[in-house]
Amino acid sequence: MVDWKNPPRLFIPGPVKVNEDILEQLARPTLGHRGKEYAQLQSETVEMLKEILFTKQHVFLSTSSASGIWEASIRNCVGPNEKVLCTCCGAFSDKWVNVAKSCGRKVDELKVDWGQAILPEMIDKKLSSGKYAAVTLVYNETSTGLTNPVYEISKMIKEKYPDILVFVDAVSAMVGLPLHFDELGWDVVFASVQKAFAIPPGLAVAAVSERALQKSKDVPNRGYYFDFQLWAKSNEKNQTLVTPNIPHIMALNYQCHKLMAEGMENAWARHKEMGEFVRSWVKEKFELFCEEKYASNTLTAIKNSRGISVAETINSVQEKHNTIFGNGYGKLKEKTFRIAHMGDITLDEVKELLGWIDEEIG
Amino acid sequence: MVDWKNPPRLFIPGPVKVNEDILEQLARPTLGHRGKEYAQLQSETVEMLKEILFTKQHVFLSTSSASGIWEASIRNCVGPNEKVLCTCCGAFSDKWVNVAKSCGRKVDELKVDWGQAILPEMIDKKLSSGKYAAVTLVYNETSTGLTNPVYEISKMIKEKYPDILVFVDAVSAMVGLPLHFDELGWDVVFASVQKAFAIPPGLAVAAVSERALQKSKDVPNRGYYFDFQLWAKSNEKNQTLVTPNIPHIMALNYQCHKLMAEGMENAWARHKEMGEFVRSWVKEKFELFCEEKYASNTLTAIKNSRGISVAETINSVQEKHNTIFGNGYGKLKEKTFRIAHMGDITLDEVKELLGWIDEEIG
Repeated sequence: MVDWKNPPRLFIPGPVKVNEDILEQLARPTLGHRGKEYAQLQSETVEMLKEILFTKQHVFLSTSSASGIWEASIRNCVGPNEKVLCTCCGAFSDKWVNVAKSCGRKVDELKVDWGQAILPEMIDKKLSSGKYAAVTLVYNETSTGLTNPVYEISKMIKEKYPDILVFVDAVSAMVGLPLHFDELGWDVVFASVQKAFAIPPGLAVAAVSERALQKSKDVPNRGYYFDFQLWAKSNEKNQTLVTPNIPHIMALNYQCHKLMAEGMENAWARHKEMGEFVRSWVKEKFELFCEEKYASNTLTAIKNSRGISVAETINSVQEKHNTIFGNGYGKLKEKTFRIAHMGDITLDEVKELLGWIDEEIG
Repeated sequence: MVDWKNPPRLFIPGPVKVNEDILEQLARPTLGHRGKEYAQLQSETVEMLKEILFTKQHVFLSTSSASGIWEASIRNCVGPNEKVLCTCCGAFSDKWVNVAKSCGRKVDELKVDWGQAILPEMIDKKLSSGKYAAVTLVYNETSTGLTNPVYEISKMIKEKYPDILVFVDAVSAMVGLPLHFDELGWDVVFASVQKAFAIPPGLAVAAVSERALQKSKDVPNRGYYFDFQLWAKSNEKNQTLVTPNIPHIMALNYQCHKLMAEGMENAWARHKEMGEFVRSWVKEKFELFCEEKYASNTLTAIKNSRGISVAETINSVQEKHNTIFGNGYGKLKEKTFRIAHMGDITLDEVKELLGWIDEEIG
């Protein structure tokens, strides 16, 4: 029987399982968003995020899902007559194209098959052939479990196309995979908190470069809700433009303290260890959906090479253990399945889940 | 000492005090937003909201503050070459003008002094003199504690200008003041949950008419995050376009159950009783900022006719009782002060607060 008050434990690639201590943070007494208490909360949280993202530039908290920042990056930093190059390697990078078009912008697509990576030389070829204001990248494609080589890509762009802005969707990457914002020369990067931050959905985190902020000054009809200019003005007072999602910011503050104590290198290593373990299991029982060198450390997409019924396996694990993992996304349904190993999910929990799947597939 | 973990109890006009039982709802285990459990939660919640707002049309949950719906109403339902009439009687109705302009739309303003109401005949005069696609109204102006006569205004517009769309900011009105969406003939109405719903900030509720939805089909460059067309498609599956703020929707579900059990007439009467009590106190000790017939039942703006130091009085009450009320908004700072009496604030709590203020003013 469906009962939202007794939901399964989540190993789908987001929202992921949230620990009790995090949930309790959401239940703290609320604050006046123009008062000193809120300013203290925001200032503490943003300062920690700057260290976590290795940036001295702007960090914003957005009461939206990360998809809001897809739109914000375009609306703020691409002029109405400028063109964006969108790199597409799965469902979420594809969606960004539609978002850019829905804002009336001109878009060129660089498309590879789902499960393939976007490589520096592909982008180089495209950028050399046309005039682009910006390029969009997805760090970790949640639909295919693929990590693009964003460090290599960014190095190439910085060297050869230093004037082109770089927007990066790091939804299922941020805090699970290395991210040095300033060093990478990125202009906008963002994530929702329901992935590797291991907080329920409802808030997005964005880092924005000073040059992206400068650029936005001259872009017309930016709108209000996602206007970087207004965001930056409010940020100076340790406030947000609009009334913020305070419970989630309290939970984020708590998670940032934990990440700072752990150290980012250790957090990334923890994700790598889980990724490696799942991949070793996959290679024994199934096949990886993407080439191993691009397989993600925050979630794994598994090719259903044994022809099992993925839906039935998920249902059976849910019935026995009140736990679910993910079917393939969209056209990859039943052809793949996905297991999240990020945030507060532990290696022991992953091992337990894989054991349950083993019992099902015999 | 400022300590966001031990904040004062809030009688500012939003966010307002939230009861412990509501806070606990935020801490429930989270859900997969494409799963059956979430669809059940959303469907239950939206059905209750339709009864609460007296509508058989569309009700949407938006992971944003209500300011997002300022923008959504304009971006979806006003063409790039159409004109909006914005009625302005305080800080928040004023801001909507800027939002409409930030979307590149043409705006005419109908402005009265802060503390004055917008009257049907003023709107009639404006609408008869020009060609407008839509008019914006603020039901309850939070900066001045004024309730506009929206029932009379809506009757006039329905009779004389049935083709003009009506957008209503009901941020500090919804569930505290009567609201019969279909009967009023409104096209968009919205509120944040941190006012009379008595939930922490992070979510907005919007009702949208079928004709507003039809209109939006032909408006170009609506963007993605606030696109009513995409919202409606997701709503049919009891989902939202983007990953929603699930903890707040759980709390909203809980509050809707409570409101349904109470009955909306009773909820409105409860707010009226608190409003009347505060006004009787004000008339003894100070003066009302607006004419009594327009004074709000969800918050009261009080003219500082005794020349007290508002900031010092608030500080003193905070120090002694860890409770705050609101200074005047913007240019009304120190000239007025504001007390919220909405949501889960009780008459007894209001009486206690007024007693504390009495002690301060002697």
